[in-house]
Amino acid sequence: MTNDDLVQIHLIEQLKFRYLRHLDLKQWDDLADCFTPEATATYGAIPKIDGRDAIIEFLSSSLSSTNMLTSHKAHHPEINLLSNNQANGLWSLEDEVLVLDAAIEIRGCAIYQDEYVLSDTGWLIAHTGYRRIYEDTRPRPIEAHITAKWWDAPMP
Amino acid sequence: MTNDDLVQIHLIEQLKFRYLRHLDLKQWDDLADCFTPEATATYGAIPKIDGRDAIIEFLSSSLSSTNMLTSHKAHHPEINLLSNNQANGLWSLEDEVLVLDAAIEIRGCAIYQDEYVLSDTGWLIAHTGYRRIYEDTRPRPIEAHITAKWWDAPMP
Amino acid sequence: MTNDDLVQIHLIEQLKFRYLRHLDLKQWDDLADCFTPEATATYGAIPKIDGRDAIIEFLSSSLSSTNMLTSHKAHHPEINLLSNNQANGLWSLEDEVLVLDAAIEIRGCAIYQDEYVLSDTGWLIAHTGYRRIYEDTRPRPIEAHITAKWWDAPMP
Repeated sequence: MTNDDLVQIHLIEQLKFRYLRHLDLKQWDDLADCFTPEATATYGAIPKIDGRDAIIEFLSSSLSSTNMLTSHKAHHPEINLLSNNQANGLWSLEDEVLVLDAAIEIRGCAIYQDEYVLSDTGWLIAHTGYRRIYEDTRPRPIEAHITAKWWDAPMP
Repeated sequence: MTNDDLVQIHLIEQLKFRYLRHLDLKQWDDLADCFTPEATATYGAIPKIDGRDAIIEFLSSSLSSTNMLTSHKAHHPEINLLSNNQANGLWSLEDEVLVLDAAIEIRGCAIYQDEYVLSDTGWLIAHTGYRRIYEDTRPRPIEAHITAKWWDAPMP
Repeated sequence: MTNDDLVQIHLIEQLKFRYLRHLDLKQWDDLADCFTPEATATYGAIPKIDGRDAIIEFLSSSLSSTNMLTSHKAHHPEINLLSNNQANGLWSLEDEVLVLDAAIEIRGCAIYQDEYVLSDTGWLIAHTGYRRIYEDTRPRPIEAHITAKWWDAPMP
């Protein structure tokens, strides 16, 4: 482990943080820029998705509604540099999905297994996927209400 | 991105972690030491607060009761060094506020936008603010109960 | 704070992340490898546990059932290097324990106070302990159900 390794690990973590920010903010074009064109994804029990365009199509068609609120937080990065331009990493995900139209709440945690490659424009996600540790689904209590939402409020 | 940049980013993150620890532990004097005297804050829909003293007055008057339990966790730091003594940063906040007297629970996530300056005593917060991604408010279930509290227990 | 300090802090964080991953995945042998033989633990109100074997015995006997689902996330590391081979650190814990057999949910946050030593095989935990900020216990809603579990599903 050298100081230079730390810089590369930092840059890979920045990529992941950007990915997660754009995901929860439903910024699909910016999200696409986090992936290689050939990237693949395996999100839990969902069949493997091939290619950046298919990943973005899947995510945007699933999550574009602002009545579908998501919080994805990635913890505990364990990044391994495999070469000058390849790395992989484990993360511990905790996520919440509020499906307001169906009055359902899904909370869970998972282990992410990612692969990264260094391109001309910086590190990109070549593969992302997670396996659930557990996922808990329940109806939203009838008295729960959303008291603030990104898409309703101006920037302070 | 140099090794020295990593050190400065690390020190800014340490400042934020100290701020969050003192906030949830209601240690207002230590919290004050995280800010410049002229610091400003924009917490969600709350009007802009001007000055360190006003920020601490706002937080301590809102949150001093130990029947008001808070957990603020800041994820996914994206810190940018703007010069030798200025930086800004995005964080992904997840917080929970248990208002025991009113039997209400507030959970939410937000994007923090902070500004930092390097002083003689280290990095300080010059501005902090967040915009909610979403906030969910609900009554506490009647059967929920607090089974441990910092202010009731001796250090193990 | 030097670049070399950052490398050591990084390695200590990697140890903690491994510990937390093995804990939630109930991988007791791997978890044991995170501790010195003489390690001690003080988990909240539980009496002090002496020795790696006793810690693993306590954790595995408490948490081995896959009807006992746990998520331990450690935030906001504040690691102090005390010498070439000694360090301590604060972390902000957020955890959830779903006790499915008893239909109880426990959520809480705490401040971890750890001690680390550098051994021939890398950094190890010499002491770990936390003090609760708060802990909230409630019955699981009758309509809540587990919709995925690590131990039921093949790796994607």
